[in-house]
Amino acid sequence: MSFNTFGHLFRVTTFGESHGVALGCVVDGCPPRIPLTAQDIQAELDRRRPGQSRFTTQRQEPDAVKILSGVFRDEDSGQDVTTGTPIALLIENVDQRSKDYSAIRDKYRPGHAGYTYDVKYGLHDYRGGGRASARETAARVAAGAIARKVVPGLVVRGALVQMGPHRIDRANWDWDEVARNPFFCPDAKAAKFFEDYLDGVRKAGSSIGAVIEIVAEGVPAGLGAPVYAKLDAELAGALMGINAVKGVEIGDGFAAASLSGEDNADEMRVGNDGRPRFLSNHAGGILGGIATGQPVVARFAVKPTSSILAPRKTVTRHGEEADVVTTGRHDPCVGIRAVPVGEAMVACVIADHYLRHRGQVGDSAAWPFSKPKA
Amino acid sequence: MSFNTFGHLFRVTTFGESHGVALGCVVDGCPPRIPLTAQDIQAELDRRRPGQSRFTTQRQEPDAVKILSGVFRDEDSGQDVTTGTPIALLIENVDQRSKDYSAIRDKYRPGHAGYTYDVKYGLHDYRGGGRASARETAARVAAGAIARKVVPGLVVRGALVQMGPHRIDRANWDWDEVARNPFFCPDAKAAKFFEDYLDGVRKAGSSIGAVIEIVAEGVPAGLGAPVYAKLDAELAGALMGINAVKGVEIGDGFAAASLSGEDNADEMRVGNDGRPRFLSNHAGGILGGIATGQPVVARFAVKPTSSILAPRKTVTRHGEEADVVTTGRHDPCVGIRAVPVGEAMVACVIADHYLRHRGQVGDSAAWPFSKPKA
Amino acid sequence: MSFNTFGHLFRVTTFGESHGVALGCVVDGCPPRIPLTAQDIQAELDRRRPGQSRFTTQRQEPDAVKILSGVFRDEDSGQDVTTGTPIALLIENVDQRSKDYSAIRDKYRPGHAGYTYDVKYGLHDYRGGGRASARETAARVAAGAIARKVVPGLVVRGALVQMGPHRIDRANWDWDEVARNPFFCPDAKAAKFFEDYLDGVRKAGSSIGAVIEIVAEGVPAGLGAPVYAKLDAELAGALMGINAVKGVEIGDGFAAASLSGEDNADEMRVGNDGRPRFLSNHAGGILGGIATGQPVVARFAVKPTSSILAPRKTVTRHGEEADVVTTGRHDPCVGIRAVPVGEAMVACVIADHYLRHRGQVGDSAAWPFSKPKA
Amino acid sequence: MSFNTFGHLFRVTTFGESHGVALGCVVDGCPPRIPLTAQDIQAELDRRRPGQSRFTTQRQEPDAVKILSGVFRDEDSGQDVTTGTPIALLIENVDQRSKDYSAIRDKYRPGHAGYTYDVKYGLHDYRGGGRASARETAARVAAGAIARKVVPGLVVRGALVQMGPHRIDRANWDWDEVARNPFFCPDAKAAKFFEDYLDGVRKAGSSIGAVIEIVAEGVPAGLGAPVYAKLDAELAGALMGINAVKGVEIGDGFAAASLSGEDNADEMRVGNDGRPRFLSNHAGGILGGIATGQPVVARFAVKPTSSILAPRKTVTRHGEEADVVTTGRHDPCVGIRAVPVGEAMVACVIADHYLRHRGQVGDSAAWPFSKPKA
Repeated sequence: MSFNTFGHLFRVTTFGESHGVALGCVVDGCPPRIPLTAQDIQAELDRRRPGQSRFTTQRQEPDAVKILSGVFRDEDSGQDVTTGTPIALLIENVDQRSKDYSAIRDKYRPGHAGYTYDVKYGLHDYRGGGRASARETAARVAAGAIARKVVPGLVVRGALVQMGPHRIDRANWDWDEVARNPFFCPDAKAAKFFEDYLDGVRKAGSSIGAVIEIVAEGVPAGLGAPVYAKLDAELAGALMGINAVKGVEIGDGFAAASLSGEDNADEMRVGNDGRPRFLSNHAGGILGGIATGQPVVARFAVKPTSSILAPRKTVTRHGEEADVVTTGRHDPCVGIRAVPVGEAMVACVIADHYLRHRGQVGDSAAWPFSKPKA
Repeated sequence: MSFNTFGHLFRVTTFGESHGVALGCVVDGCPPRIPLTAQDIQAELDRRRPGQSRFTTQRQEPDAVKILSGVFRDEDSGQDVTTGTPIALLIENVDQRSKDYSAIRDKYRPGHAGYTYDVKYGLHDYRGGGRASARETAARVAAGAIARKVVPGLVVRGALVQMGPHRIDRANWDWDEVARNPFFCPDAKAAKFFEDYLDGVRKAGSSIGAVIEIVAEGVPAGLGAPVYAKLDAELAGALMGINAVKGVEIGDGFAAASLSGEDNADEMRVGNDGRPRFLSNHAGGILGGIATGQPVVARFAVKPTSSILAPRKTVTRHGEEADVVTTGRHDPCVGIRAVPVGEAMVACVIADHYLRHRGQVGDSAAWPFSKPKA
Repeated sequence: MSFNTFGHLFRVTTFGESHGVALGCVVDGCPPRIPLTAQDIQAELDRRRPGQSRFTTQRQEPDAVKILSGVFRDEDSGQDVTTGTPIALLIENVDQRSKDYSAIRDKYRPGHAGYTYDVKYGLHDYRGGGRASARETAARVAAGAIARKVVPGLVVRGALVQMGPHRIDRANWDWDEVARNPFFCPDAKAAKFFEDYLDGVRKAGSSIGAVIEIVAEGVPAGLGAPVYAKLDAELAGALMGINAVKGVEIGDGFAAASLSGEDNADEMRVGNDGRPRFLSNHAGGILGGIATGQPVVARFAVKPTSSILAPRKTVTRHGEEADVVTTGRHDPCVGIRAVPVGEAMVACVIADHYLRHRGQVGDSAAWPFSKPKA
Repeated sequence: MSFNTFGHLFRVTTFGESHGVALGCVVDGCPPRIPLTAQDIQAELDRRRPGQSRFTTQRQEPDAVKILSGVFRDEDSGQDVTTGTPIALLIENVDQRSKDYSAIRDKYRPGHAGYTYDVKYGLHDYRGGGRASARETAARVAAGAIARKVVPGLVVRGALVQMGPHRIDRANWDWDEVARNPFFCPDAKAAKFFEDYLDGVRKAGSSIGAVIEIVAEGVPAGLGAPVYAKLDAELAGALMGINAVKGVEIGDGFAAASLSGEDNADEMRVGNDGRPRFLSNHAGGILGGIATGQPVVARFAVKPTSSILAPRKTVTRHGEEADVVTTGRHDPCVGIRAVPVGEAMVACVIADHYLRHRGQVGDSAAWPFSKPKA
């Protein structure tokens, strides 16, 4: 994991600023002969795209993706497939209203990265958050669309499970509901509540945090590795690396601290297919850093955006004290659009581990692992 | 981050199993001319060492560290110093009672990595948890002792802030108290309570989880980097990679999801020294993946160990169903000894970022970042 | 060094095929506040650009580079400078005459990568060599233009020193001559000879190899590192990784095998400035993998291109035997345009080591290294 | 490739100084369930071990290797096998006559790394060359012994093909001869000559260079990758990284510069088994950075050691001019013992690429690559 590259064998390098010419990524190490079209990627980008409801920034960006390389027509199948060489994806910026930001160009927004970028680099592209903008996550979603195709049978889905202090009722969980409301919320009743709640936040010029849950099904048992390439460790790094994320959990997460060993144990039996099965999933599908074959479950907490109408005390890059108010286009709850981003990051981590596992081990061991005792 | 290597410029590669000949690590990339003796490392190892109270495993391991390479006498100062070449550290295993584990050799403990290691590799050293044993973390602590010396002025301290469902009272926080009780607990009153509480857990042959907090002071502003080398992302990966950890938070963590943008904002003023100062630290010392100069605050949740006396349903590696009971020496609350391990991981991440920052940027930018406006 | 990424701290990721939409690269890890314009990069690209004499392919490509990200206006200086975030460079393909290749689409050219790409990936973009085309090296030259700016005082120059069996006369070496002939040849007399010689090769529809020498001056003593990050090892990897290169030498290279220890020794004295100086440079500026401060000297051998008019025996991707003749636009001596590419690779390696050295060591040690003895 | 780690998926990290406590390595990423004993490794170490003839240093080192981790008894087969976790290997130093070096402790040997280590790090372990000693290569040979077992069917052999200016007669090449003389020379007649020749060099207190050739058979077609992970590029880096190496060639190497495209073409036919076969191997088994399936052929040039009896002009680390004479135990031709080291590096590179290829691609494409045309 270097500065702007993510992954080891399935490697994603992203570039671009919020109000620059374009942003994009280079996906290196993708296996060859995987059918891939721009439309496959566009479909995922459209889920993250801003301006689709009144609850996200009104910036109008088509986020139209172009494949620049790494895909070629397969003579035998007649399909466009990956070639094993780098897949470069380009998304041009269209709706850059840089004037929106001129008023706050020199003033640091408390809770925003402008100050730390300047400490580190001495300057930064302040327009729309520049490199620190959530706009960079479009490149992640694009890469994730490819990652999803790398692991046969993998299904990665995400949902908003908490907005501000309000948690959904997990008894109402319905994956189909996620696509039906502007919050990626699996609980229809909660979604209805969030509509009013977030309108209030939005109209007040305020912002609010959220908690997102990602569930990956079809993760082959055996993916991951001790000791510093643990599947959960790399998921935690990937999710914490999303803009505004402040906490990550796997399985029972922080609640596991309160459990006894008896309650935390995911007991095992032999299933009808003769293979091991688990009677519960406190572990969130990962033991010792390696996938058990159960669904991998991760959650992450997103802080409220720093772009708010209420004046906050700050300093300028010239060394003066000031008050700052943010009036541009923004998301009252950036956690919402983090759902497809979280899915993409999880998909990328799993695709990377899929290739790394195949590299080191080839096929996982056959069950049972030892000959039955005489 | 490869399978058993951690870090980019300050790189730690660990090896060894719980009941093998020895364990240890190779620290590569350490700057030269840093005074270093085995005693510096031993002091940290002694904090993690088992058998120091009735609340940790009774295995007796001196954990005596030997420096095999990378340190040499400096002619001018007469001190032993790092040479810039790899520092190999060796800790021999002494008290391996492998017979303790023979009864459970073929049965998977629910919640333990034995099953997933076998899925992945087809076999594993089952004695004492083998490579998945918390014993591996001795190597991390040893490496952390070196990391602490790499960053001038860095102080990394940890504390247990929750055991089972019981949280400490943060109003009682006293860093000096941490060394006075067997729980690394900064709240003397809570420590007293934990003594009775954990005795109950221990006598019942059960186990319990915990939450640990690590605070790093003296982290230079500017360390870290967008987008995939974020300081918080790498801390999250490092801490989630510690055995039994299921959740990681930075600053306000999951609580930030419930905050409004107004409440989450760490406002800024110009301090008496003319430099920016923050009026609060919801961010835990990190904005946009880059250190603000405030204390870096991270927490992680440790699940209860799977080694318990109560029988649990499981399967064997031969494919049969069975019940398993764990009778060997174990920690009723593995979270306790995770405190120095968490400190070590945080120190390693910061040392690595210190070198990476110096590599890319040299010195951080001078304040103020632009000439004051005329 | 991953599949399509080069370097550790100064990292270059390239993408693109010869006849695709575009090619380019992402330069990550570049220090901030380095003045950089598209013209700086274009100047280097123009030296590698095809179609500038009858001795290189007649493909007409302007190789116009666009900077997509990572550069921003510095408020104080009014200059465009690097921001420390990824610099994405895009070069669109313009003159793709893909029909030129249709006749040979299924037949492997002996000595060309088409066969091995198909073995590995099952298919490849065969148009103009696809990813294996020398056209990919434009991205390297672009990255090298940035690398040159990273190391203060660094000057990297290259020259063709052998074409076919004909070596230049080193007594005639004149760096100024390099820009005056179409061969990057520092020996005016040899250049005159090469003109006739290569015309003969070209008209015969044949091709010929070459040897290129790169000299880097201003490489700070201390760059490089034992044991697997040796400056010479990474230069060797970088230069051998250029298309068609079959051999690499540092300093005296293969001739050193014939030397005695006495003759190979670069003796040392104290110079007028009180610092060590060397009386010769058999080592090519590198000892133990670390720069001595003398000029770094590397040479590499380029094989003749496989695109020739003479029919060669081959097989098709359908499994049949065939003869193949290559009639498209090609370079009779691809070694010529390898000169700026070799310079770029050397510049990238040195820039990377400059940052890595600064990361691990900070400043090199002060001379003398120990206090003079009393 | 970091400072002291080599490889991506098959990763070798070495440590240790010539006269320190011990040296060794950690091999990470090795596939599980490969039978491995210390004796397998010892057999390779014994080929490199010093003191076996009057033509190598008289230092007596048993180079006895211990496996510290990563190997465990397989219950079903009763064999010791790799577990997939890090394999740590330890070789204790025994015959450290450090007094031999005290006379030259402050004086730099021209052509030796002592000066550059001091420039970089400010000090170094000067005893016996410290980290820069050829003794470090024992760890590489040990790792190579494991690498050889990773790739089914791989055979890597090396031979000395030139000593000083004297080349062997390739018509006399007999692999069996290599083990029969102290020079790893495949030409019995040349070996006889080298005996007298090197005795002369040795008695004169001088030293001489050599050229070594490594041939790897059984390298699966398809290993390697564009653009910066080329098999030849990584072989070049690996071989140039061996102590005292100044040049590396693949296949025809520098001689390819003199060839025409017609002569360089390795023509292809369909073999009796229906698969492609090559009529020659100018390419040395690699096209476009990817293995063709032919033997991989590499050569490297080793300079004469700097440890000679003739006085040379130098400076001291205190800043004074001096003359230096080296009187300790040394190899008159270090190239000899570089043969098993070169084999080991080639084996490690191929093992790494074997795993990386399997990771990205799984199985190579089936021949023919497209359906035969109707």
